[in-house]
Amino acid sequence: MSLIVQKFGGSSVADADGIKRVAQRVVDTQSAGHQVVVVVSAMGDSTDELLDLAAQVSPAASDAREMDMLLSAGERISMALLAMAIHGIGASAQSFTGSQAGMITDAIHGKARIIDVSPHRIRTAIEKGDVAIVAGFQGMSRDSNDITTLGRGGSDTTAVALAAALDADVCEIYTDVDGVYTADPRVVASAQKIDTISSEEMLEMAASGAKILHLRCVEYARRFGVPLHVRSSFSHNEGTWVLPSPDDQIKIQEGEPLEQPIISGVAHDRSEAKVTVVGVPDIPGKAAEIFGIVAGANTNIDMIVQNVSTHGSASTDISFTLPIVDLPDALAALGEAQERVGYESVEYNEKIGKLSLIGAGMRSNPGVSYRFFRALSDAGVNIDMISTSEIRISVVTGAELLDTAVRAVHAAFELDGETTATVYAGTGR
Amino acid sequence: MSLIVQKFGGSSVADADGIKRVAQRVVDTQSAGHQVVVVVSAMGDSTDELLDLAAQVSPAASDAREMDMLLSAGERISMALLAMAIHGIGASAQSFTGSQAGMITDAIHGKARIIDVSPHRIRTAIEKGDVAIVAGFQGMSRDSNDITTLGRGGSDTTAVALAAALDADVCEIYTDVDGVYTADPRVVASAQKIDTISSEEMLEMAASGAKILHLRCVEYARRFGVPLHVRSSFSHNEGTWVLPSPDDQIKIQEGEPLEQPIISGVAHDRSEAKVTVVGVPDIPGKAAEIFGIVAGANTNIDMIVQNVSTHGSASTDISFTLPIVDLPDALAALGEAQERVGYESVEYNEKIGKLSLIGAGMRSNPGVSYRFFRALSDAGVNIDMISTSEIRISVVTGAELLDTAVRAVHAAFELDGETTATVYAGTGR
Repeated sequence: MSLIVQKFGGSSVADADGIKRVAQRVVDTQSAGHQVVVVVSAMGDSTDELLDLAAQVSPAASDAREMDMLLSAGERISMALLAMAIHGIGASAQSFTGSQAGMITDAIHGKARIIDVSPHRIRTAIEKGDVAIVAGFQGMSRDSNDITTLGRGGSDTTAVALAAALDADVCEIYTDVDGVYTADPRVVASAQKIDTISSEEMLEMAASGAKILHLRCVEYARRFGVPLHVRSSFSHNEGTWVLPSPDDQIKIQEGEPLEQPIISGVAHDRSEAKVTVVGVPDIPGKAAEIFGIVAGANTNIDMIVQNVSTHGSASTDISFTLPIVDLPDALAALGEAQERVGYESVEYNEKIGKLSLIGAGMRSNPGVSYRFFRALSDAGVNIDMISTSEIRISVVTGAELLDTAVRAVHAAFELDGETTATVYAGTGR
Repeated sequence: MSLIVQKFGGSSVADADGIKRVAQRVVDTQSAGHQVVVVVSAMGDSTDELLDLAAQVSPAASDAREMDMLLSAGERISMALLAMAIHGIGASAQSFTGSQAGMITDAIHGKARIIDVSPHRIRTAIEKGDVAIVAGFQGMSRDSNDITTLGRGGSDTTAVALAAALDADVCEIYTDVDGVYTADPRVVASAQKIDTISSEEMLEMAASGAKILHLRCVEYARRFGVPLHVRSSFSHNEGTWVLPSPDDQIKIQEGEPLEQPIISGVAHDRSEAKVTVVGVPDIPGKAAEIFGIVAGANTNIDMIVQNVSTHGSASTDISFTLPIVDLPDALAALGEAQERVGYESVEYNEKIGKLSLIGAGMRSNPGVSYRFFRALSDAGVNIDMISTSEIRISVVTGAELLDTAVRAVHAAFELDGETTATVYAGTGR
C-alpha cells in the first residue's frame, strides 16, 4: 500500500462535472489499494471573481490579511464539494482547511512561507480509511493564528509539503497537460513529453520559464526528497516523473541501464526586460552599489553581464535582466541614485527573450556549448547576454527571434519527436 | 463609550454597494465614539448557490460536516469584503471566523448549539480601536475542532451570544424593515412599529410566527439580559427595542411614566398543519404514547387539544398542530403504530392558520379574552383550537379566514395606526 498525495488545480475542479470526475479518480486510486490525500485549488475562475468583488468594495486598499481571508474561502468551497462528490459515489472523505491540516506559516500575508507541517488530523483520517482532502494555497500563521495564503504556486507547494511531512511515496500534480515537455509545444510542435527528469534539471526548467511546475514546489520536493509525478487529469497516461536523486531515477526505471540523456529540454521566457547602466565609473564597489539600489526596490535580478572596461577607459557598462513587472521600480530607484553613483545613462529593452538549454548530462559533455551556439548562429540568432550554470546555458536574444531560436536548439539536440504535442494553456494557482 | 454589536443579514450585504453602505454605517457608529463588533451573514443568494453546487456534485448525500465546511465559506467572503470596504474609507477593521471569535459549539453539524464563547481576539481588536467583524452562523465544535453552522437564525444568535460574552450595551439587528410591527404589514396595512417590547413578549411573537427575529436569538438575549435593537439598514430611524427586563424598559424610556400597554401585537402563522387522531382508547397513557410516536419522528408539536370523552364513550380524539414540513414523517410514524395504539383513523388539514395575540399586560386584564373572542366572532371567524399562555392567546382557524381574523383582532385592540406601514419581505439566515 502506498500513500499518494494528489493535487488538482482550479481547471480540474472548475465545475460540478469536473469535481465529480476528480472524485472518481481519487476513489479509483484508493480502490487500487492506496491511501490518498488530495490537495485542491479553488474552482476555476472563482478566485478572479473574489478579486473582482474586492476591487469593487475598496479600489485602493491593499489589505493583505483580509485578502487572504477572502481568497481562502475558494478552496473551502472546492474541497467540501469534492468530499461530497466522493461520498456520493460511496467512499468516505473528510476535508480540512490549511490550519486543520497543520500548515503552519509565517505571517507574510499573500506570500506566506511554510514553517511547519503537523498533519496529525490527516494521518488519523487516512489511517481510518478516509480520503483526506486539504485546501491548497492556505495555512495559518504561527504567531497570529491568522489565515494566510502561500502566493503563486501555493497549492503545488501545499501538496509537496504534505507529501514530505507524511512521507508519501509520490506527490501527483494533476494538470491539463500530459507532463513536462522538451520545449513549449506551442512553439515547438514536435516537442516530446519527458518521462523522467531530475529535480535539479526541473528547477532550472522552472527558473528558465517552463510554467508547468512552480520553482518553489520543485525546490521543496528536492529538499525533502519527494518524487513528483506531473500528469494530466484528463487521461490515465503516465506523465513526467521529477525525481530528487539518481537513485530514485534508477528505481523508477527498474533496472533499465540508466543512460543520462545529455539534454532534458529547452525552456524560454518572455517575461523579462534588460537594463543597461551606461558609463559606470570603473571603481571597485560600483557594481555592488547598483545592485543594492535595484534590490532595495524589491526587484528580482536574474542575469548580469559586466563588460570589461576597454583599455584606458575610466568607465564600464553593467547590464542585467529582471521581470518586466519590476522594471518601473528599478528604473525609478536607479534614476534617483544617478548623481550618487555617477553613471551616465540608463537604457532598457522590454523586447527580449531568454532561451535556456537544460540537461544534467552537459556537465560531462564538453561539446554542448559549441553545438548550442552553432545552432543559434546557423539560425541567424544574435546573442545579447549569456549566463550558465553547471547544467544550463541561457542566452538573451531579441524577442522576435525567440521562437526561431527555440526550434533551432531543440532540433540541434535531437529532441524533436515523431508526434505532435497537444498544445496547452497556462495553469492556475 | 458604549460597546455595540451590529448584525447585518444577507440582504444588507448582497452586493458591493450594500457592503460599502454597511461599512459606512459601521464607521459612523465608531466615529460617534463607540466600540463596534459587526456580525455578518453570507452575501445575498450566495448560500443558495453553494447549496445548488452541492446538489449537483452529489444529489443524494446528506453530508452535514462537509455542508458546514461549504456554507461557512459564505460568511468568510462577506466579512473579508466588509473589512476591506471599511479600510477603503480609512478606518481599521479585522475579520474573524467563528472559531477565531471563540464561538465554541457542540458537534451537531447544521444546527450546532453554542456551548461557550471566548471572544478574547475580539476584545483585543476593539480595545486596539479596530472594528471587529465576525462571521455569523458558524462556530467550531469543542470535541472535534470541526467547523459547524448554527442553523436557522444562526447569525442573529451569533450576534447576541457575542454581545452577551462581551457585555455589550446593545445588540443591533439590522434588517430590511423598520422594526417589529403590531402585525404583519402585508396583512394589516395600518400596523404600527412597536417602540419597545419585553423579550418575554418578543419570544411569544417569534414562537407565534413573527419572522423578524428568530426565537433562538430572543431566548438567548433574554437569558443573558442583552438588549436588542431591531432596525432597518436602509434608514437611521429608531427601530424596536427588545428589552430583557422592565428595569431596562424604564431606563430606555428615560423616566416617562411606564404604562405597560396591554397588548403588544398580533402574530400569525401559516406554516402549520393540524392532525387529529380519531378514536383513541380512553385509557391512561394513550396520549403519551401518541406524542412519543410523533416526537420519535423528530417533529415539533405545537398546540395540543384532547376532547373530553363524551359520557359513556370508550374513546376520545386527540388533535395537535405541527410544522407542515414535519407532516409526512408524523403521518408515517402514526400509521405504523395504528394497531399498537388502537386508534381508529388519522385526519389532517394543511389549510389552517394560527393567530396569536401577545401582550404582557393581559396578565392583569381579565377582559382581554372576551374582547378577543368577541372580535373573532363578529368577523365570522370560526375557531378550531385554542391555546394560551400568561401573555398570549392563540387560536387555529381555517387558512382562508386568517387575514380577516388578524385585521379584526388588530382593530379590536386599537393597534391600528394612522400611517401605512412599509411592506417587507422575509429575512435571511
